[in-house]
Amino acid sequence: MKILTLNEIAARLKEHDNILVLMHKSPDGDAVGCAYGLCLALRQLGKNAMPLCSDAIDKKYGYITSKLPEQHFEPQYIVTVDIAAAHLIGEEIKQYRECVDLCIDHHGSNTGFAKEGYVDADSGACAEIIAKVIERMGADIDSDTANAIFTGISTDTGCFKYSNTTSNTYRIAADMIDKGADGAYINRIMFDTKSRARLEVERLALETMTFFDDGKIAVICLTNKMRELSKATEGDTEGISSLPRQIEGVKVGITLNEKDENQFKISARSTGDVDVSKLCARFGGGGHKGAAGCLIAGTLEEVREKITAAAIEAVKEISGEV
Amino acid sequence: MKILTLNEIAARLKEHDNILVLMHKSPDGDAVGCAYGLCLALRQLGKNAMPLCSDAIDKKYGYITSKLPEQHFEPQYIVTVDIAAAHLIGEEIKQYRECVDLCIDHHGSNTGFAKEGYVDADSGACAEIIAKVIERMGADIDSDTANAIFTGISTDTGCFKYSNTTSNTYRIAADMIDKGADGAYINRIMFDTKSRARLEVERLALETMTFFDDGKIAVICLTNKMRELSKATEGDTEGISSLPRQIEGVKVGITLNEKDENQFKISARSTGDVDVSKLCARFGGGGHKGAAGCLIAGTLEEVREKITAAAIEAVKEISGEV
Repeated sequence: MKILTLNEIAARLKEHDNILVLMHKSPDGDAVGCAYGLCLALRQLGKNAMPLCSDAIDKKYGYITSKLPEQHFEPQYIVTVDIAAAHLIGEEIKQYRECVDLCIDHHGSNTGFAKEGYVDADSGACAEIIAKVIERMGADIDSDTANAIFTGISTDTGCFKYSNTTSNTYRIAADMIDKGADGAYINRIMFDTKSRARLEVERLALETMTFFDDGKIAVICLTNKMRELSKATEGDTEGISSLPRQIEGVKVGITLNEKDENQFKISARSTGDVDVSKLCARFGGGGHKGAAGCLIAGTLEEVREKITAAAIEAVKEISGEV
Repeated sequence: MKILTLNEIAARLKEHDNILVLMHKSPDGDAVGCAYGLCLALRQLGKNAMPLCSDAIDKKYGYITSKLPEQHFEPQYIVTVDIAAAHLIGEEIKQYRECVDLCIDHHGSNTGFAKEGYVDADSGACAEIIAKVIERMGADIDSDTANAIFTGISTDTGCFKYSNTTSNTYRIAADMIDKGADGAYINRIMFDTKSRARLEVERLALETMTFFDDGKIAVICLTNKMRELSKATEGDTEGISSLPRQIEGVKVGITLNEKDENQFKISARSTGDVDVSKLCARFGGGGHKGAAGCLIAGTLEEVREKITAAAIEAVKEISGEV
C-alpha cells in the first residue's frame, strides 16, 4: 500500500466521484461515524457517495444514518474507513476486498490491503483522521457531519476513558460541538442509556464473574442462554466486555462471548499495563494494546481455562516475574 | 456580593497571602479539583494556601490531595470554590460562613453570601473558571494542577455527558492534558472503577427500581441496610443517583438516599427536558437543571410518594399537559 499524506488523501477524494465508503463488519460507532461523516462531506462537495456495510447498523445510530438519503450509482472509487484488514470487509460485500483504492485507518496492525492509504495509530478514533480529511477537502462541517464525527471519537475512546485519548481528541470534539454536535446527548445515548433488557443481561453476565491471579484478572461469560432469557439484542450486549476491567484492582478483563456451539469470541480489555493485543494474537486475534479480541473453540470451561492461563502469563510478564 | 471580573479575581488573589480555600461539605471532584488546583497555583506564586473542608475527602482523590503538603498559617483571605450558599460550608468550619472574602462559583442559584465574587453558570464545572483564574494570575499549570482541574471538569460534567458540557469544557480538558493531566486514567478512576462493595450495593439499589408515568420516571432507594449488607462506604455509593436516569425512556431519575431515620436525601437527575432544580426547590432544595437535590422527612413510602407525585407533575408541565 502506498502511504499518502492527509493532503493527498483529500486530493484523491476530490478527484473522484461515485465514491463507495466501506465499513467493517459488526460496525461500531467509529465505523458508522467515519463512513457517514465522510459521505456527508463528499456530498456537500457535489459528489455521489454512499456508505456500505455487510452487517446491519444498530438503530441507536439512527440520528446519523437517517441524515443521508440513499443514492444509487456505479461505484468508481472504493474507500475503507477504520478497517485494519481485508477480511474485516464482511462476507456480504467481499467482492470489494481486493479492489480497495483508498484506506483511511488508525490501527497500527493495518495490513496495507489497499492500493493507497493513510494509517495514523496515534489517533484515538479513525474519526479524528476523517475530521482532518474533511477540513483539508475544504468541505463545511454541518451539525449532522459533526454528530457523526463526534460519535466516532467518543465511542472509540470509550467516552474519553481509553489510553488512546489525546488532547487532539478533545480538541476535535470541541470543534465538533462548535459545529453543532450534541456531544452530551451522544455520550449519554452511547454510554449512559440502558434498555431494560440490557440491565437484565448485564446482571446475568456479572453473576458469572470470576477472579484470578489475586484479583488482577476478571472473567465473565455471556451465553446464548442469557441472551434468550433477557431478550437482549446484539446492541443490548455492546460494551459488556468493558465491565470486568472496571472492578478495582483488575488489570485484565476478559469476556467470553458464546457465538456458536463450542465457539467463543474473546474480548480482552486492559487498564494499560498489559498489551492485550499480544495476548489475543496468541489465539490468532488482534486489536489495540488496551482492547483486543480473538476466537477460541472449545467448551466454556476449556476456553476459560485457555485464555485465563495466557492472561496470567501476560500479567506475570509485565510484573517482571518471567 | 460585589461581582468581579475574572481579571479582578486574579488580582485579588495576587494581592493577598495566607489564603484559605473552602470546599463545600460532602466534597465532590469539582470541589476537590478547584480547591487543590487553586492552592497549588497560589503556592507556585509564593503564597501560603490551604484547602479546607468540614468533611473528609474520599481516598480516590489521593492522587490530588497527596500533592499538597500541609501548611500552617493564620488565614488572612477566605475564598470559597464551587459553593452556592453559606450553609454548604459544613458545621465543622461554620465559623467561616459569615466572613468569606471571595466566592468563585458556577451555580446560577448562588446566594451571594461573600463580600466579592464571580459566578458563571455557563461553566459546566467550577474548575473551568479556576483554570481561567490561574491563567490570569500568570501561574504555570504543572501536571498536578492539571490533574486537579481535569478532575473537576470531568466529574462535574459526568464524564462529558451532562448538558452543561460545552466546547469550552473540552478545550480546557485538552489544555490540561497538554499540561500533563492523565485524563484517561482520571476518567477511568472516577467513572469506570468499581469496588466489589460498589458492585454489590448497586445491585441491591437496582433491585428497588420502580417506574412511574409510563417509564418516564424511575425511582430507586439506597437504604442504610443496603450499605450495611454490602459494606459500602460513602465513596462506594457516589454516583448511584445517576443510575435510574440511564434507563431508556426515563426523563427523570430519582434516588431516595436514607440519611437518618425518616429522613431522606433526594437526588433528582434529568435528561434535560425537565428542570429538576425547580422540582427540588419545592422541597427546599436546589441545584442545576439536570441535577438537583433536597431533603424530605417521612417514611420511605411517604417520601417516595411525595417526590414521585411532584415529578409526575413536572413531566406533565414540559409535555404541555398542564
